[in-house]
Amino acid sequence: MTADIAAAKAALAHLELDENPVSLKAKSRDFFWYSPVLKARLDHVVGDFAVAPRTEAEVIEVLRTCYRHNVPVTTRGAGTGNYGQAMPLAGGCVLHMRNMAAVKEIHPGRVIVEPGCLLKDLDAATKAHSGQEIRMFSSTWATATIGGFIAGGSGGVGSCTWGSLRDLGNIIRLRVVTMEEEPRVLEFRGEELARVSHAYGTNGIISEIEMPLAPAYDWVEMFVATDEFDDAMAFAEDLANQDGILIKLATVFEAPIAHDYFQRVKPHVEPATNLVGLMVAPHSMDGFLTFLGRRPRARIIYRSDDNDWARGPGPVFEYGWNHTTLRALKVDPSITYLQVRYGFPRHRELVAKMREKFSPEVLQHLEVLREGGKVIFAGLSLVKFTTEERLDEIVRAHEEAGAMIFNPHRYTLEEGGRQTVDDRQLRFKKEADPKGLLNPGKMIAWDDPDFKYDRVYAYPGMKAAE
Amino acid sequence: MTADIAAAKAALAHLELDENPVSLKAKSRDFFWYSPVLKARLDHVVGDFAVAPRTEAEVIEVLRTCYRHNVPVTTRGAGTGNYGQAMPLAGGCVLHMRNMAAVKEIHPGRVIVEPGCLLKDLDAATKAHSGQEIRMFSSTWATATIGGFIAGGSGGVGSCTWGSLRDLGNIIRLRVVTMEEEPRVLEFRGEELARVSHAYGTNGIISEIEMPLAPAYDWVEMFVATDEFDDAMAFAEDLANQDGILIKLATVFEAPIAHDYFQRVKPHVEPATNLVGLMVAPHSMDGFLTFLGRRPRARIIYRSDDNDWARGPGPVFEYGWNHTTLRALKVDPSITYLQVRYGFPRHRELVAKMREKFSPEVLQHLEVLREGGKVIFAGLSLVKFTTEERLDEIVRAHEEAGAMIFNPHRYTLEEGGRQTVDDRQLRFKKEADPKGLLNPGKMIAWDDPDFKYDRVYAYPGMKAAE
Ligand SMILES: Cc1cc2nc3c(=O)[nH]c(=O)nc-3n(C[C@H](O)[C@H](O)[C@H](O)COP(=O)(O)OP(=O)(O)OC[C@H]3O[C@@H](n4cnc5c(N)ncnc54)[C@H](O)[C@@H]3O)c2cc1C
Ligand SMILES: Cc1cc2nc3c(=O)[nH]c(=O)nc-3n(C[C@H](O)[C@H](O)[C@H](O)COP(=O)(O)OP(=O)(O)OC[C@H]3O[C@@H](n4cnc5c(N)ncnc54)[C@H](O)[C@@H]3O)c2cc1C
Repeated sequence: MTADIAAAKAALAHLELDENPVSLKAKSRDFFWYSPVLKARLDHVVGDFAVAPRTEAEVIEVLRTCYRHNVPVTTRGAGTGNYGQAMPLAGGCVLHMRNMAAVKEIHPGRVIVEPGCLLKDLDAATKAHSGQEIRMFSSTWATATIGGFIAGGSGGVGSCTWGSLRDLGNIIRLRVVTMEEEPRVLEFRGEELARVSHAYGTNGIISEIEMPLAPAYDWVEMFVATDEFDDAMAFAEDLANQDGILIKLATVFEAPIAHDYFQRVKPHVEPATNLVGLMVAPHSMDGFLTFLGRRPRARIIYRSDDNDWARGPGPVFEYGWNHTTLRALKVDPSITYLQVRYGFPRHRELVAKMREKFSPEVLQHLEVLREGGKVIFAGLSLVKFTTEERLDEIVRAHEEAGAMIFNPHRYTLEEGGRQTVDDRQLRFKKEADPKGLLNPGKMIAWDDPDFKYDRVYAYPGMKAAE
Repeated sequence: MTADIAAAKAALAHLELDENPVSLKAKSRDFFWYSPVLKARLDHVVGDFAVAPRTEAEVIEVLRTCYRHNVPVTTRGAGTGNYGQAMPLAGGCVLHMRNMAAVKEIHPGRVIVEPGCLLKDLDAATKAHSGQEIRMFSSTWATATIGGFIAGGSGGVGSCTWGSLRDLGNIIRLRVVTMEEEPRVLEFRGEELARVSHAYGTNGIISEIEMPLAPAYDWVEMFVATDEFDDAMAFAEDLANQDGILIKLATVFEAPIAHDYFQRVKPHVEPATNLVGLMVAPHSMDGFLTFLGRRPRARIIYRSDDNDWARGPGPVFEYGWNHTTLRALKVDPSITYLQVRYGFPRHRELVAKMREKFSPEVLQHLEVLREGGKVIFAGLSLVKFTTEERLDEIVRAHEEAGAMIFNPHRYTLEEGGRQTVDDRQLRFKKEADPKGLLNPGKMIAWDDPDFKYDRVYAYPGMKAAE
């Protein structure tokens, strides 16, 4: 089964095709370079051509053509993923969704949208229409697409209230095109959503999305400072447990993250300052200030609606989630990160343990998250990288203590997840992508069902560097 | 200090005054008769006259006048309270708020309203204006006022998501008129709200209210049936813990409540059927049905948007909260009830214990509630009443097991609460009602600071039956 790239390109010449080496290289990369491990392995990856369909019919045409000519297809939203999700390991076609960005229908509590719509454009449309916005967004709100968020993301700003994308109710319906001789268009709801959400586009192309909406408010963004880390952690958690105070973000930054990596914040903090980043609904500000008044060891140093900072910090959510890592990396390129789940009810105890063991080699960056109705922490810890061995050692210590790791230094679904095959995704791939052409190399269960997770998976079909 | 009723009436004659014995008696009563204990003690209570101010200025005039003539003033919303809260134990003036019912301003996330506005009228106005509604309402939505809900209620439909009225953020601002020689008008926010909310109007008259709003949806109302009680209880709790499924009500009814007391439901259930009453946002129905699909032992028997019931049950929330007791009482006048807090994390274990000990003398009716970020149960248990002694015994058994009781068979703030003085309320009463004229007999700490809670409090100033 060899790919006939030339034939596919010829057949698709009437569509918006891109073969320019420079832009093609850009369209073949994402934020994999956050990870020194992935950087070493994926830096050379590039597709053979990119195509940007304008309609679902054009998506079908691309898939039908690539199927016929055995050309791998890797879908791309905006390429802001961190694990090489959108990178065409085997080369072939990069299916760029940017031309399918229409907001189709807006109703009370839900929206129907095309996958290539940027999160910020989606929010602008629903806000203008009826004062609504999506429940949660990746901190890459300004640049990422809704399709990429669903196929490659997990949750984000808003997850402190609504939980994660995978939770029941946070996606209503997905329309999916299969990779077959004659592609089919399927509609998934309920249990079926798990087949293709967070599947990296390995088993179908999402062509339409129905998402729930929440009311849009002029969120008040704030930084609250404490001297002790524990006070910052308790502040964030206890606030999230205030049922009557509506928040959209609660992030904890261990000192000296704020001082060392947040340039616009630096003039307002000491190296020893711990920080909490917040978004609070304007009509909850009274309740919030009452809560704050009960915590003499916490002080607001910034609020977006009232401050005298000479240079504003920009959106506070662009300090949280994976933006923390980005800011740290810009200052210190040797920084990388881990993704940790500190589950209820041991979350605080586990954070304390890991801090004791690893601070400051590992600095705590915690995102407040709801899981199963409880407030927990998702850690996106900053790690001072030395060697892959030491990184693995740190990972193991977390796992042994009971803090689950979602390893961001791996490019497969399984290794980045719970190290087990997702049967629903695998079964659907067998049905929807019989030739295994969709985003090859990202689902171990497809390539090597007996893989033992005793080493970093290395996709054998990876196109070599030229 | 004797009340000069005649002088007060003469001075207020230009206002909307009512002295008709029949309507005055009606305006002097609430739903105290739910409790055989209160029924025996308060049945004769009646005010001397009622006045219904149209403006805050008229409220001030009434208070100034009554202060001068030493006339007690008991405020009345709609008189749906259950503990004689709105009953003028010492006679005097019933201050009826029905003419102050304007919705003044509606903004994203909040509303400013006069206290006499009915909950249902408030929701209609905010819904028509901008698709919003109040976060939570008493199940007496159709008849009760927002002022009475805040001064006399605790929470209700919506509390499974937003917690209770006392939680920070669930009331934004209260404007209050004091009972002094020259009444003052004060504005309370934050910590100060606790002075007058749930204070039964004993230390000030609320003349304006600012409340947070949530989006209004066409909630889908449902009854879900199970054969086992534990399945119903788990269904309600687990659903409330689904962060992505937006609900407004989750109520559990132990068998045979539905069969014996819910006449329109009866044809659709067996005596052994346990029931869960629900309100789910329409855009969460897909997530809800997925959740339901994982619970083969639970089945929908009614949904408001799709059913073939010959006679509809009416709003499902009018089966929950204290409407359950009302329905039971109508069928069996010997039924009364208790208010129980089953706190996290022992809530399920405590319910099981109480069931084992008392069912069917005490039948479990549970309301899902959020408290401190956790899902817990508020029990409004149905009790087959025999004697006051037996009722006290049941109360004691709950308390000994660790299930806190808010005794609905008492007419004072303290006995219906945690049996302790609320210092904030008492201190403010000293300042705002120096003569002790507001709703006398409801705050033990005012009358008898040394009361030991070793018996039912009997207000010495209670006007005798004629
Ligand atoms: C600074 C920074 C902060 C971040 N913060 C967050 C965060 O808060 N939360 C979070 O979850 N992630 C976060 N991420 C990761 C990433 O930004 C998000 O997952 C983002 O939503 C991806 O969107 P995208 O359009 O860039 O998708 P891409 O990176 O282009 O694609 C992501 C995956 O989805 C697939 N895909 C894209 N579109 C489709 C489609 N239509 N059909 C099928 N498959 C498709 C791609 O093949 C790829 O596997 C962050 C990344 C960075 C760099
Ligand atoms: C069938 C039934 C179901 C119920 N369900 C619930 C429920 O779900 N949740 C709940 O919390 N309660 C419930 N209750 C109790 C009661 O209905 C609520 O508390 C209700 O909101 C009271 O409103 P109201 O207008 O009838 O107030 P009223 O009964 O008239 O007054 C209540 C108290 O507030 C005081 N008050 C009224 N207005 C003012 C004012 N402007 N300023 C100062 N004080 C004032 C009164 O003096 C009185 O002490 C229920 C009662 C019944 C009979």
